[in-house]
Amino acid sequence: MSAGTVYGVGLGPGDPDLMSVRADRLVRGAAHVAYFRKAGRPGRARGIVTGMLRADATEFAMEYPVTTEIPLDDPAYAACLSAFYADVSAHLRDLARAGEDVVVLCEGDPFFYGSFMHLYTRLKDVVPVQVVPAITGMSAAWTATGIPVTWGDDVLTVLLGTMPEAELARRMADADAIVVMKVGRNLSKVRAALASAGKLDRAWLVECASMSDETAVPLAQAGDRAAPYFSIVIVHGQGRRP
Amino acid sequence: MSAGTVYGVGLGPGDPDLMSVRADRLVRGAAHVAYFRKAGRPGRARGIVTGMLRADATEFAMEYPVTTEIPLDDPAYAACLSAFYADVSAHLRDLARAGEDVVVLCEGDPFFYGSFMHLYTRLKDVVPVQVVPAITGMSAAWTATGIPVTWGDDVLTVLLGTMPEAELARRMADADAIVVMKVGRNLSKVRAALASAGKLDRAWLVECASMSDETAVPLAQAGDRAAPYFSIVIVHGQGRRP
Repeated sequence: MSAGTVYGVGLGPGDPDLMSVRADRLVRGAAHVAYFRKAGRPGRARGIVTGMLRADATEFAMEYPVTTEIPLDDPAYAACLSAFYADVSAHLRDLARAGEDVVVLCEGDPFFYGSFMHLYTRLKDVVPVQVVPAITGMSAAWTATGIPVTWGDDVLTVLLGTMPEAELARRMADADAIVVMKVGRNLSKVRAALASAGKLDRAWLVECASMSDETAVPLAQAGDRAAPYFSIVIVHGQGRRP
Repeated sequence: MSAGTVYGVGLGPGDPDLMSVRADRLVRGAAHVAYFRKAGRPGRARGIVTGMLRADATEFAMEYPVTTEIPLDDPAYAACLSAFYADVSAHLRDLARAGEDVVVLCEGDPFFYGSFMHLYTRLKDVVPVQVVPAITGMSAAWTATGIPVTWGDDVLTVLLGTMPEAELARRMADADAIVVMKVGRNLSKVRAALASAGKLDRAWLVECASMSDETAVPLAQAGDRAAPYFSIVIVHGQGRRP
């Protein structure tokens, strides 16, 4: 019997119409699907494929043992997640060794800040693994603003809201176009860093890009709302445009 | 009569299987398609949709009046391109005003270094325009390397091979993960900048990502070949990975 393949399938930013033709075909045909979720939640990746799965598909929900309860820099955090990734990877490995293909549903693009990478590194030398790239959340976000993000020789810098404020401000000052991922509870820090860098007036806040509740507003008008974890801040480049 | 819509449809990195479901539907249904190309060439965007267009589709090839014959910083370059964009935009505007939808075929993601942006800015306040984001060439490129590009809080910096070598080296030294677009004839300069930044040994060269002739090799092993214009250099981040 030949081994099955573990597919890390990028679903894109959230609108199922923005899934790739390949992802759409793999998802609809899958006998086994797996996806990460927070315990007690339906799961964002699973939500994107609502109504698309085969009636007889077997689902494997991979529930994070920890999300924000332990600080990221605590060794206990890494140890806990590492054991979790090893455990779920072993399950996927066993399915593949039994000849079954498995589609792992991934929000966004799997190799761009995606959780699938932690399974990929554990499985790639053990069973066949294929990765399907996808439209990133940031592409949907800058499209939602209605303004192109990079022109000519604009440098694009992608930052994380989780970074220290001074480091954010330093890099923002040196960038042409800016994307800040993982804004969420870091919104006020991100706003302060943009102000330090002199770019707050050009920044946009995009929430739920490509989804039915998408919003895109200048950050200065956004108030102090608690932005969803997957909200994205965009500063557009100003490069050459004939 | 109501106006038609000009759709800027991102086709993604080159493999038609990586087009979005929406792009696939718009392309297959289009009565009018338009695309940029170099004079005398079939056009890369047009090539991606081979076999997908309606038999009765009307095609509008927008042929660049200049590509590398005039230096980018010569005012004549901007003036020549500006007149060209105005001219083809007027044609698309007239089609929309006549009630016709037009699908403009765009390689990659339209708002990310895409030529469609020059039509978008001229049309967006004149006729209805919709933009369909897509998988970027860089997503296909890092997927082709088989190595995830950003982990944890890795900063991603997107640079252009057309930038001065010292500026490339400075930004490369300060980056975690790096993408260099528009490598082409700038390959030796990009290599030198990576060496200055101490990151040449981690760099990959990806050519024709997602296409049948895709190659992905460590840059140090790539020799001095003339890389295609759309080749991409990738340096992967080394961030947190439990």
